[in-house]
Amino acid sequence: MHAATLPPDALRERAAYYERIGARNMTPLWEVLGALVPPQPRTPVQAALWRYAELREQVLEAGRLISAEEAERRVLILENPALRGQSCITQSLYAGLQLILPGEVAPAHRHTQSALRLVLDGEGAYTAVDGERTTMRRGDFIITPAWTWHEHGNLGDEPVVWLDGLDIPIVRFLDAGFAEKGEQQSQPAQRPEGDALARYGANMVPVDYQPRAAEPTRVFVYPFERTRASLQAIAQGQPDPHHGHKLRYVNPATGASPMPTIGAFAQWLPAGFETKPLRSTDGTVVVCLEGRGEVQVGDATWRIQENDVFVVPSWHGLQLRAERDMLLFSFSDRPVQQALGLWREQRL
Amino acid sequence: MHAATLPPDALRERAAYYERIGARNMTPLWEVLGALVPPQPRTPVQAALWRYAELREQVLEAGRLISAEEAERRVLILENPALRGQSCITQSLYAGLQLILPGEVAPAHRHTQSALRLVLDGEGAYTAVDGERTTMRRGDFIITPAWTWHEHGNLGDEPVVWLDGLDIPIVRFLDAGFAEKGEQQSQPAQRPEGDALARYGANMVPVDYQPRAAEPTRVFVYPFERTRASLQAIAQGQPDPHHGHKLRYVNPATGASPMPTIGAFAQWLPAGFETKPLRSTDGTVVVCLEGRGEVQVGDATWRIQENDVFVVPSWHGLQLRAERDMLLFSFSDRPVQQALGLWREQRL
Amino acid sequence: MHAATLPPDALRERAAYYERIGARNMTPLWEVLGALVPPQPRTPVQAALWRYAELREQVLEAGRLISAEEAERRVLILENPALRGQSCITQSLYAGLQLILPGEVAPAHRHTQSALRLVLDGEGAYTAVDGERTTMRRGDFIITPAWTWHEHGNLGDEPVVWLDGLDIPIVRFLDAGFAEKGEQQSQPAQRPEGDALARYGANMVPVDYQPRAAEPTRVFVYPFERTRASLQAIAQGQPDPHHGHKLRYVNPATGASPMPTIGAFAQWLPAGFETKPLRSTDGTVVVCLEGRGEVQVGDATWRIQENDVFVVPSWHGLQLRAERDMLLFSFSDRPVQQALGLWREQRL
Amino acid sequence: MHAATLPPDALRERAAYYERIGARNMTPLWEVLGALVPPQPRTPVQAALWRYAELREQVLEAGRLISAEEAERRVLILENPALRGQSCITQSLYAGLQLILPGEVAPAHRHTQSALRLVLDGEGAYTAVDGERTTMRRGDFIITPAWTWHEHGNLGDEPVVWLDGLDIPIVRFLDAGFAEKGEQQSQPAQRPEGDALARYGANMVPVDYQPRAAEPTRVFVYPFERTRASLQAIAQGQPDPHHGHKLRYVNPATGASPMPTIGAFAQWLPAGFETKPLRSTDGTVVVCLEGRGEVQVGDATWRIQENDVFVVPSWHGLQLRAERDMLLFSFSDRPVQQALGLWREQRL
Repeated sequence: MHAATLPPDALRERAAYYERIGARNMTPLWEVLGALVPPQPRTPVQAALWRYAELREQVLEAGRLISAEEAERRVLILENPALRGQSCITQSLYAGLQLILPGEVAPAHRHTQSALRLVLDGEGAYTAVDGERTTMRRGDFIITPAWTWHEHGNLGDEPVVWLDGLDIPIVRFLDAGFAEKGEQQSQPAQRPEGDALARYGANMVPVDYQPRAAEPTRVFVYPFERTRASLQAIAQGQPDPHHGHKLRYVNPATGASPMPTIGAFAQWLPAGFETKPLRSTDGTVVVCLEGRGEVQVGDATWRIQENDVFVVPSWHGLQLRAERDMLLFSFSDRPVQQALGLWREQRL
Repeated sequence: MHAATLPPDALRERAAYYERIGARNMTPLWEVLGALVPPQPRTPVQAALWRYAELREQVLEAGRLISAEEAERRVLILENPALRGQSCITQSLYAGLQLILPGEVAPAHRHTQSALRLVLDGEGAYTAVDGERTTMRRGDFIITPAWTWHEHGNLGDEPVVWLDGLDIPIVRFLDAGFAEKGEQQSQPAQRPEGDALARYGANMVPVDYQPRAAEPTRVFVYPFERTRASLQAIAQGQPDPHHGHKLRYVNPATGASPMPTIGAFAQWLPAGFETKPLRSTDGTVVVCLEGRGEVQVGDATWRIQENDVFVVPSWHGLQLRAERDMLLFSFSDRPVQQALGLWREQRL
Repeated sequence: MHAATLPPDALRERAAYYERIGARNMTPLWEVLGALVPPQPRTPVQAALWRYAELREQVLEAGRLISAEEAERRVLILENPALRGQSCITQSLYAGLQLILPGEVAPAHRHTQSALRLVLDGEGAYTAVDGERTTMRRGDFIITPAWTWHEHGNLGDEPVVWLDGLDIPIVRFLDAGFAEKGEQQSQPAQRPEGDALARYGANMVPVDYQPRAAEPTRVFVYPFERTRASLQAIAQGQPDPHHGHKLRYVNPATGASPMPTIGAFAQWLPAGFETKPLRSTDGTVVVCLEGRGEVQVGDATWRIQENDVFVVPSWHGLQLRAERDMLLFSFSDRPVQQALGLWREQRL
Repeated sequence: MHAATLPPDALRERAAYYERIGARNMTPLWEVLGALVPPQPRTPVQAALWRYAELREQVLEAGRLISAEEAERRVLILENPALRGQSCITQSLYAGLQLILPGEVAPAHRHTQSALRLVLDGEGAYTAVDGERTTMRRGDFIITPAWTWHEHGNLGDEPVVWLDGLDIPIVRFLDAGFAEKGEQQSQPAQRPEGDALARYGANMVPVDYQPRAAEPTRVFVYPFERTRASLQAIAQGQPDPHHGHKLRYVNPATGASPMPTIGAFAQWLPAGFETKPLRSTDGTVVVCLEGRGEVQVGDATWRIQENDVFVVPSWHGLQLRAERDMLLFSFSDRPVQQALGLWREQRL
């Protein structure tokens, strides 16, 4: 019998009971079971788009209001419209636009949160991870894995803006966050630039290297140039009807995702190609790196172009139409869901 | 310069800026960075104890107020006092006390949430998983893994109360929940009782069985009798100063935890033994199955006895003192944290 | 052109060439390619049977001829008739019958070879592995993994005979054998009997235990009583047409075979059951522990009964007919072949 | 008591006994135990060197004696001097020099044996694997994994010679070899050259690709140009005293060796560098791709230069001295030994 149809006495009795057990920190499951165990995902996350052309000025304005040093990281968080105040773009992921001005340093720190960086705008910045610097070029997929010392700087003469993606909500949810600030602003270089990529990223690894369980990749930069060349090469073959040409980044020492909490993907759609709709349980953040086109996420339809960022909530259909050759970067919590046996995908 | 020391004009300027960017679903990281990336876990979860002796009557009262069939599952959720309204005992775990009366059936359903059951009180109930029943005896660790059909029933003549532990908050956080109700109340038996334990639980598996990635164990019952005998056997050796004698349940076909989202443990402390304090990042739910003693969780100290349930929040020191031989069952999200490279433990 | 059809001059020219390159340690592939890369396995191993009733006296006679101490291990190797002098029963496995008389000790040693023991006859013996003894009962599957100290003794009053299975040919083939003799005949007991089984063998493991890569199981005894009970339980279900009821032993901390080089299996055929023929690439040693029946291996057909041992060479069809309920133990190099991606099986 | 010291009667008695049990296919372990379970590896394999300058003419002569088509593969096997007639360079590995003349095709076949190819001499050849061709350049590490269709051809105008490395002895030892000839000489191209490297070899893989257990890499060519550049980059750092700068090739979709049976390595020694001695249980085949120097293997010392091939038997010390910058390629059965828990290495 549905509670709404109970006689008033029964309702009062239940209410009194709920109050009594509430005093003991107990509450009845049967009043919430449907919401707790829904027939399919009912995410609170909302489809949303951030058009870079409309945001660029606001991002640059942050450079006038606060220094990189004062901010530690001068970032505008992209907050999901349905989750304002929670510092997240999906329930499990954080995204933001970071600005670093010529001559600035975002000082060295480390934390158990894992991060990715994807330069959108400007040249001359670098990221250093555990004593090795990498020059940040547009589209490079750069990571600062959990508990690695990292800093950023801008050695050029123009502002640089990149997208940050972190697992902050995951680490907060699991109550497992640790952080430290470096004693110095900047860590001394211990290896020449390119060392990690040569040592771990050319389908070879050091002879005695055996990664620990859940160890993130030592390859902390996936150069855009190489990614783009690979996508163009495979684009000579047949596209997948739902994906076009889509690759996932891996840790070449394990085959796992570069970081255990965040999966990342690069996708190429030839001009004129339209994907069939697809949905999956991993809410995903997508960046348009090249080209332009139209995207449909659930009921929303947007035109997108370079540097636009949008979010596809869990179990929302996604459909893409490329007007020009389109290159998309995306990231999600897919490796978490796969490790836990929870990930599902449906081709519609 | 700390924001509090800014001149009023600067503060106004920032506030206006925050409003402007807020309209674009952006917010400044630097106002929240410390909270997002704390130096060590600052869990909102609170240490808490549920004394079974004080709750038993309230649990039984639920049997008068609502039928198992109406409730689908007649459970009182143990809500963390600091997280009321969120149906969870830690941020990632759900716990509840389920009551099933003689003759009742909690009808068949399945969902992507994983569950464990631990009988505290009463005899005569059974759980059926994918067509095999197991009689539920006190202390048996029984699981109903993700997406398996399961039902419960009480064939005896007394009320039965067990502890439920689920990963509901994890699945909700990841927006990955699916559920279905069975067409019939009860699934027909396909195999005799004991089949799964014989087939997968005697350090052998079917000759051609190869578990899928992240597949939970086919052993859906870990009999208390066997667990207890093992603990007593190893208790002839030296106890660990921080653990006493502690085992973790495994999926014997993989060595992983029985379910990918929940780790479970059995622990034996000889009368008079006192553990040294220990803390870890996995908030843990502990049940006293036998004996009595004292427990310190962070700043709280409680006396505990049979069927009491308490929660140890992340990074809170835990110390145990056994007055009589004490047997504890516990569960946490440790396998999740280990899969993601986030788990830490510190012996104090 | 086939060599046989070459004109005499060409043949001479080739022979002279072969001689010239032979002096440089080179030889032509084309003369042997067919043998090196056969269309399907052409094992030199021969199907063979050892009837225990005919061997028992000879085994016991060894007890009069040589002491356990002098022999270090008093074993009669079962040599494949086609591989005499090579100390192996298949190309990759060694098997033997070991005899230990009342009061004797086979002194402590260790080696990188992995071994299994299966008591066939007599009571009162024990095996000790790294300081823990286990009483050896008929049918118990006992292992002494690579590089563990082990010894055997007979505390009873009758001769005990067991089957040894080792990976000696594998270790020899890989040139990777190390061995050491203990300083004392007997290793002091460090743990009570049953400790390993309680600690690792009850679907639980020590809370902090993480096996190393390729680590063998810490469960060094799989009691026959438990194996037999499991087989009888699953025999209530439908038999597989090619296997009857067949389980493989696992390391419950990993799901892998108990030792990385040797897989072991227990099989139950109800009286009257006849398997359909099956062949696989892992040459297999089979022991009849209970019952009697008929076996066909390739072209050979034998009647078998308790304690008979036979070998099924690679890719030879195997068919079994049980006259009485039959319980078979078997072992092979299957985990090696599976680790290398080489194992194949065909249901005929 | 040592057998040699037994009285004549006892010796005769034993001999008669050995004969009796020999008739039953049994033989006494105690007469051979020391050889079967040696204190450390006593490999029959001999250190050996093949100087390319001395062999080149003989290899080319094979081109006059037999056609590629007649030979199926025109290869001179490098036979270990101590294992003549066994078609192997160590007990577990096969190596050979393959010659293909302009216009020739080594026709399509497949087998469960895994192979590597390393061009030493000449340009213009290609290898095709499952429908994709790769142009073979000197030093490229090319593989034709188990059960993949493969063929070779020479489209250039000079003879091409490469080193073949196969696991033929392993597959023979395990009795697990299958082979098929293609219906056509040449498989039609299904993908453009470079597809596999773009799809699997740029630290990304196809979005839905999940390798099977023990699946070899889809990257079937590791271009020498990239390997060389990586070695030069890491050579800016400190060399390891025993290795210089040494990398192992990996399957970037798993981190395992490219093929489950054969590990491969690339090593750079700066001019003037001398390694400290090292020994390991995996007998290894080494090719000098660049430079010159001196090598000591066990008691043997040789001067080596480009294209020389030598073998380091198990547990033989290896020491290298580079006179000019030296680049070595090597391969061994290390992944087999590691999968089986048998591999050991000792820095001397």
